[in-house]
Amino acid sequence: MHATLIHGPGDIRFEEVDDPAVRKPSDALVRVVASCVCGSDLWPYRGINPPDEPSRIGHEFVGIVEAVGGAVETVRVGDFVIAPFALSDGTCVHCRNGITTSCDNGAWWGSEDEDGILVDGGQGQLVRVALADGTLVATPGVPDDAMVPDLLTLSDVMGTGHHAAVSAGVRAGSTVVVVGDGAVGLCGVLAAHRLGAERIIAMSRHADRQAVARQFGATDVVEERGADGVARIEELTDGVGVDAVLECVGTKQSMQQAIDSARPGGRVGFVGVPAGGPELPIRQMFSSNVGVVGGVAPVRAYLPELLAEVLDGRLKPGAVFDLELPLAEVAEAYRAMDERKAIKVLLRP
Amino acid sequence: MHATLIHGPGDIRFEEVDDPAVRKPSDALVRVVASCVCGSDLWPYRGINPPDEPSRIGHEFVGIVEAVGGAVETVRVGDFVIAPFALSDGTCVHCRNGITTSCDNGAWWGSEDEDGILVDGGQGQLVRVALADGTLVATPGVPDDAMVPDLLTLSDVMGTGHHAAVSAGVRAGSTVVVVGDGAVGLCGVLAAHRLGAERIIAMSRHADRQAVARQFGATDVVEERGADGVARIEELTDGVGVDAVLECVGTKQSMQQAIDSARPGGRVGFVGVPAGGPELPIRQMFSSNVGVVGGVAPVRAYLPELLAEVLDGRLKPGAVFDLELPLAEVAEAYRAMDERKAIKVLLRP
Repeated sequence: MHATLIHGPGDIRFEEVDDPAVRKPSDALVRVVASCVCGSDLWPYRGINPPDEPSRIGHEFVGIVEAVGGAVETVRVGDFVIAPFALSDGTCVHCRNGITTSCDNGAWWGSEDEDGILVDGGQGQLVRVALADGTLVATPGVPDDAMVPDLLTLSDVMGTGHHAAVSAGVRAGSTVVVVGDGAVGLCGVLAAHRLGAERIIAMSRHADRQAVARQFGATDVVEERGADGVARIEELTDGVGVDAVLECVGTKQSMQQAIDSARPGGRVGFVGVPAGGPELPIRQMFSSNVGVVGGVAPVRAYLPELLAEVLDGRLKPGAVFDLELPLAEVAEAYRAMDERKAIKVLLRP
Repeated sequence: MHATLIHGPGDIRFEEVDDPAVRKPSDALVRVVASCVCGSDLWPYRGINPPDEPSRIGHEFVGIVEAVGGAVETVRVGDFVIAPFALSDGTCVHCRNGITTSCDNGAWWGSEDEDGILVDGGQGQLVRVALADGTLVATPGVPDDAMVPDLLTLSDVMGTGHHAAVSAGVRAGSTVVVVGDGAVGLCGVLAAHRLGAERIIAMSRHADRQAVARQFGATDVVEERGADGVARIEELTDGVGVDAVLECVGTKQSMQQAIDSARPGGRVGFVGVPAGGPELPIRQMFSSNVGVVGGVAPVRAYLPELLAEVLDGRLKPGAVFDLELPLAEVAEAYRAMDERKAIKVLLRP
């Protein structure tokens, strides 16, 4: 089969690799129907944390189950399944606590499972899924092709935006700022809207992203950044700040902007992978009672709840995909996202 | 009248000062019945942030109203009142949000009000209380003298311990670690117990404080600190960590110990004044989903709820006072607390 490998900064290749197979009783083999590129895939692509050797990449996909091991109970051959961006057993104490990304036996796509066997990356034609019962979520029947983009967001960005909103304590009537207009930030807008936020201020300076933000429920758009952006938020909130801020970028600047935008007693929900280990200003947090909660999103735990709403048509996050390419053109997909020509690229084998 | 001034590190004096009076229609004049020394009073005493000039000190007291201005509506002459450690108007947006310590018109004891008029410190015989309606809470009738220590804790330490517990998300069935065995940490144990925590691990190496912690509901005591303390918490929780950690110290070490003690998805509620601006390990917070929430406790907002339970005898935090001295011996009270000969000293004029 063919799969995507990253050989180094800017060097993405779609290459022939060994066909995966069911290797353990808890495995499933999935033929990918759609995959995509994540903002975090751009980090090694941009040389921030380049791989030591050519490595599989991609952690978001949906597909059809082609084979299962003898111990698999929750998915069957022919099922359409959604794969969250982390593997988890669904049974350990952390999974039971809803933090599936801290699973005692968990693994990451493109890496190895607990026995050291390769787990394929998500940007390929076939994937060996370890811990299939805990990891995969099957839809009832094979969904209409038009729904695939919506379903694919449940692999990562929609669940991650939801985690930001939940971590920030968004509830009915909340005032919200969303820092970051990537696919996660936009899904954060949608998640806040879904949770009943009254006012949602999206920080974005790109017309195409602003349009999606408005479509997803943003009531205001702020183009300014940094101190100017914070001043504009203050202006919009009569000097108070907002109840909840969704930090969907991960830089020191974006985190500071998030903390500065919250009202006293407000909360920052953060899901941006911290780039360069920004320090949190604990004295400011202390004097303002602005809390910081969040992290790597346990999207598997959120999947059933969000999936139900996608299936009945209430939740449509698929608009974050503004470009679709054949999987074989994955290198072009990375280029388009790196150059911000696309918000998020959907790939079809 | 006489009041306490700090002249410099280690230099506490009980001196004659001008008698305060009602200066504005929203003022009240309160004769102090009991005051006390706070752990945070020891900071300037120890020279960490020494005053530039001799300054009033003390921010916890209960007393009897001697006079009120013409605009005061909620307290009357003769009322027994509890003064929270910060003044607040009770009407601004932040007060309405429950963050009274961020009041738009707030002030601090021993400092000045919004018009630049001195607000007396709490360790004196008389106190001019600005914003009396928003700040003071009266009891129904003058309480029995035996209840004074319990009531006095509502000025600060009980409300602050409660804020740590609430910020950490303690609820029925929670597992909890309390870092810090000062009066606030001990009140944090009591607050966690009151909120229904199932297991409360108090970190303390002092037999007298351990005894109070047990009395307040601690189920376990850990004497080890730092990495050893964390290892012991892991051992006690089958390697999982706890749902909620109350950080009641404020050093970089204690905060790290708190974050290390939480389970993935757990939360640290912090109320220790950050000493030296400890940085928060954002990457660890990201990968473990351990949130950090808290700050300067809005004890005024918690006062009605906690007061009701003190008055009906269900809540008895007064055991944190293990030494009582005449107010005139306030310098000795500082010495006793500085040398850890007392957990907390109650002062009577």
